[in-house]
Amino acid sequence: MVSKNQIKLITGLVQKKNRTEQQLFIAEGIKVIQELFQSDFELVHLYTVANLNIQVPSDKITQITNNELKRISALTTPNECLALFKIPISSKINDHELIVALDDIRDPGNLGTIIRLCDWFGVKQLICSETTVDVFNPKVVQATMGSLARVRIVYADLVDVLKKTKLPIYGTFMDGNNIYTEQKTREGIIVMGNESNGISKNIEQLIQRKITIPRFGTQQKTESLNVATATAITLSEFCRNS
Amino acid sequence: MVSKNQIKLITGLVQKKNRTEQQLFIAEGIKVIQELFQSDFELVHLYTVANLNIQVPSDKITQITNNELKRISALTTPNECLALFKIPISSKINDHELIVALDDIRDPGNLGTIIRLCDWFGVKQLICSETTVDVFNPKVVQATMGSLARVRIVYADLVDVLKKTKLPIYGTFMDGNNIYTEQKTREGIIVMGNESNGISKNIEQLIQRKITIPRFGTQQKTESLNVATATAITLSEFCRNS
Repeated sequence: MVSKNQIKLITGLVQKKNRTEQQLFIAEGIKVIQELFQSDFELVHLYTVANLNIQVPSDKITQITNNELKRISALTTPNECLALFKIPISSKINDHELIVALDDIRDPGNLGTIIRLCDWFGVKQLICSETTVDVFNPKVVQATMGSLARVRIVYADLVDVLKKTKLPIYGTFMDGNNIYTEQKTREGIIVMGNESNGISKNIEQLIQRKITIPRFGTQQKTESLNVATATAITLSEFCRNS
Repeated sequence: MVSKNQIKLITGLVQKKNRTEQQLFIAEGIKVIQELFQSDFELVHLYTVANLNIQVPSDKITQITNNELKRISALTTPNECLALFKIPISSKINDHELIVALDDIRDPGNLGTIIRLCDWFGVKQLICSETTVDVFNPKVVQATMGSLARVRIVYADLVDVLKKTKLPIYGTFMDGNNIYTEQKTREGIIVMGNESNGISKNIEQLIQRKITIPRFGTQQKTESLNVATATAITLSEFCRNS
């Protein structure tokens, strides 16, 4: 049984201001919940219609009906269980690895896809500019398919981070060096820019190595690659020889 | 001025059965319309609120109001103009190039992204299984950003096509050869599978070279890459040394 107050709290978490105030976010579906639970995320409460094979203290689990799940779910097709987790406290940035930094990514689907790519390519740290869409948005949590449990995500002032780092800073542009032939280091920060405007001017000044994914089409009219597909190709190039 | 019958015809084209019956599809926004118009697509009629710099016979253009555009547009935010084009007659498959084949891709966004990737990497032919989402779905037309004008798309029985072709047939699987080290030919068909189930059993039997994008993460839990990002990495690998 879910109380009216709980329903109000949970459904409120689709809004960023409520997530920030409560320091809580929603995850739905057993796979995502299990992966977050088994990593460093702190489970606050689990609501489920099914008997789950997951070791949660009894005061943190509530059996609910399908109708109750429908009322609290952010999904069109609710998925057996919904959990509340605490938003983790931002970790420090480690200066000895390959890091992806996002400059003002707005689309939740793109952010989710990029987190999955980081996970696939073993990138453990993702830095998001403060204008990037919130990773604890329920749509992003679903789109990550559990990769959120394995990639540390920090929201930070990107200018500040890039000014302080000792790592080489790469950025993807339309007029940089060919990514296939450019020397690439094992450690570094790769900046990916906004869906419409690319990397912003104040960040561009801090990029040390501009790279480009060359176009192979003869007609040269394709405007640009989507940021998620550009990230896929870029990470593949940084990792393929490592 | 748009008549009631025209409104009925145009708004009906969001449904596949009406597109098939009328052999027409909708494109919106000057950029997409211009690129389709300048390629082999046959313009049937253009509805516009603005004066456009496009050479269309006067009987094929209708000036409309913003309110009329809202009534016929499939977009939440209509974009100055809407055009009806004829669905082209399927062209023959050319056996001397790099071709992408899609086995049951269901998401319109993924199909749109893959068409843009084909365009970027100079792949001129895309073969879609008959179960793949319709490319003339207004969402796909918008997502292609004009690449539709440069990539030939054929819907066909994929089993039949693969049985008849003389080209080497590649397919992406979880357990194939490492794509980074596998010998890749300049001509060939690359099959990409369904979002949830990958390549279907009857297609798998016809794949001659199974390839895999290796996972670099240490935890080995990331289930799979999204089909659009996997296509990005695969096309990049086939083209980077060509």
